[in-house]
Amino acid sequence: MDVGFIGIGIMGRPMVLNLLRAGHRVHVWSRREASLAEVVHAGAVAQASAAQVAAQVDVVISMVADAPDVEQVALGPQGVAEGARQGTVFIDMSTIAPSAARDIAARLHKRGITMLDAPVSGGEKGAIAGTLTIMVGGDESAFARVRPVLEAMGRTITYIGGSGAGQVTKACNQILTGVGIAIVAEALNFARASGVDAARVREAMLGGSAASKVLEDHGQRMLDRNFKPGFKAWMHRKDLKIVLDEAHRMGIPTPASAIIAQLLNALVGAGEGEADSISMLKMLERMSETRHEA
Amino acid sequence: MDVGFIGIGIMGRPMVLNLLRAGHRVHVWSRREASLAEVVHAGAVAQASAAQVAAQVDVVISMVADAPDVEQVALGPQGVAEGARQGTVFIDMSTIAPSAARDIAARLHKRGITMLDAPVSGGEKGAIAGTLTIMVGGDESAFARVRPVLEAMGRTITYIGGSGAGQVTKACNQILTGVGIAIVAEALNFARASGVDAARVREAMLGGSAASKVLEDHGQRMLDRNFKPGFKAWMHRKDLKIVLDEAHRMGIPTPASAIIAQLLNALVGAGEGEADSISMLKMLERMSETRHEA
Repeated sequence: MDVGFIGIGIMGRPMVLNLLRAGHRVHVWSRREASLAEVVHAGAVAQASAAQVAAQVDVVISMVADAPDVEQVALGPQGVAEGARQGTVFIDMSTIAPSAARDIAARLHKRGITMLDAPVSGGEKGAIAGTLTIMVGGDESAFARVRPVLEAMGRTITYIGGSGAGQVTKACNQILTGVGIAIVAEALNFARASGVDAARVREAMLGGSAASKVLEDHGQRMLDRNFKPGFKAWMHRKDLKIVLDEAHRMGIPTPASAIIAQLLNALVGAGEGEADSISMLKMLERMSETRHEA
Repeated sequence: MDVGFIGIGIMGRPMVLNLLRAGHRVHVWSRREASLAEVVHAGAVAQASAAQVAAQVDVVISMVADAPDVEQVALGPQGVAEGARQGTVFIDMSTIAPSAARDIAARLHKRGITMLDAPVSGGEKGAIAGTLTIMVGGDESAFARVRPVLEAMGRTITYIGGSGAGQVTKACNQILTGVGIAIVAEALNFARASGVDAARVREAMLGGSAASKVLEDHGQRMLDRNFKPGFKAWMHRKDLKIVLDEAHRMGIPTPASAIIAQLLNALVGAGEGEADSISMLKMLERMSETRHEA
């Protein structure tokens, strides 16, 4: 299939390489032209704008940072809407607010373009391996048509519901992982402050109802004091801001997300936003005045 | 072995039955005499006081509600210390504050009695099946001697460290399960308020890094709207109070536990303390002014 791809960053680059490997012809554009070199070398075709990408293909994917970037790519000057034919499917795989996704989808719909929101989890590792978890919202028949394209990049691909439902799922996922990391940090810091071997505590808990992927993976990295990302603190902070903004908009309480967003604020404010979000452990330790190696 | 058991409640009863099944001679006492009938019928020997239980055995177990009860049983009038021989091992399997466990252990030590703190997780179901998770603190050689007794009641039995270490582990476990339940409720309520099928959201998340025992088990019960305990809200509230009191004593922050204790306060205040702690979902829904069946 002819596929367009806009946004060639840490995630976009390996995703394009997997699309090429699966036999798709991929047309690419990125704001930073330098980022195109590797994927063009691998066989992608560089275009001069998002509009020109859209003019070549039936499916355009975007993988950018936040809602204003998606809006720009989709509806801005030289954007997808300016070049796309009627019936084009635009798949935004960025993580943005559900309400923003619905709004952009509605505006594209008026111009004959069907948008799917299809955010991912699994990080750079999953993008390279082609094992991303992809959560999809939007028109179900459009999803069925583009499913083979998604299958080149991900393993668990779940259609959730109408426009925005993929982003709602991603927001829920980030509540469970963001706060989940924070409570593993809270528990291990509690154990250590109590003078108890945190590794044994983690091991004992893995056998019961406290068991989780986060306790297993992030918990081990906390014990190893390996704070390399992984998933950066500033990104988890951005994702919890989406949760809090949506909760504000809808008038619902998200107390755990609210308090943990404060920890992430403190981390980013301390200049540690580029570290993995498990650095929340260090913030708790610092607040506990217990001293540990950096 | 001759084993004493004090406190024949929801947990104590099946634990005694499992000790009898494993071939131990069990001497029992309980504050409420009526609760003894079933275990005596099964072969246990009723005694008139904790002191008299202790006089018959080398190992005494207690399974009561909170620290004052343990103190009473161990050190009060007609308590274990009054009847026990030198070298008796007293195993408290209740969930109490680590600092209280250490204090009682120190006072028993002066009277020639070795105390282990060995709280459990797995609930009534685990007690009946003999599959409790048991987390042990105290003297390691005493633990080695009584291990066969614990094996009659539990499956995963982990020695953690010195006096209080079992209770520290249990406190950490209750952070991860208590707050863990709250964030699954927070995410599912967020999904539903967003107009998205919460069951599909849970399903998609189970495939990735948000996966946990709590999302699996408690999440499913939330979707089924099955609020029967399980583990009661007032008990989880009591356990998080232990966390917050210890955090206060040590001067460390436990922000997630603190905020979720507020939700449990609201539940108990609303007269719903006897329901399962997954009822935190109902509290969030009520605060969201979304209407659902009871």
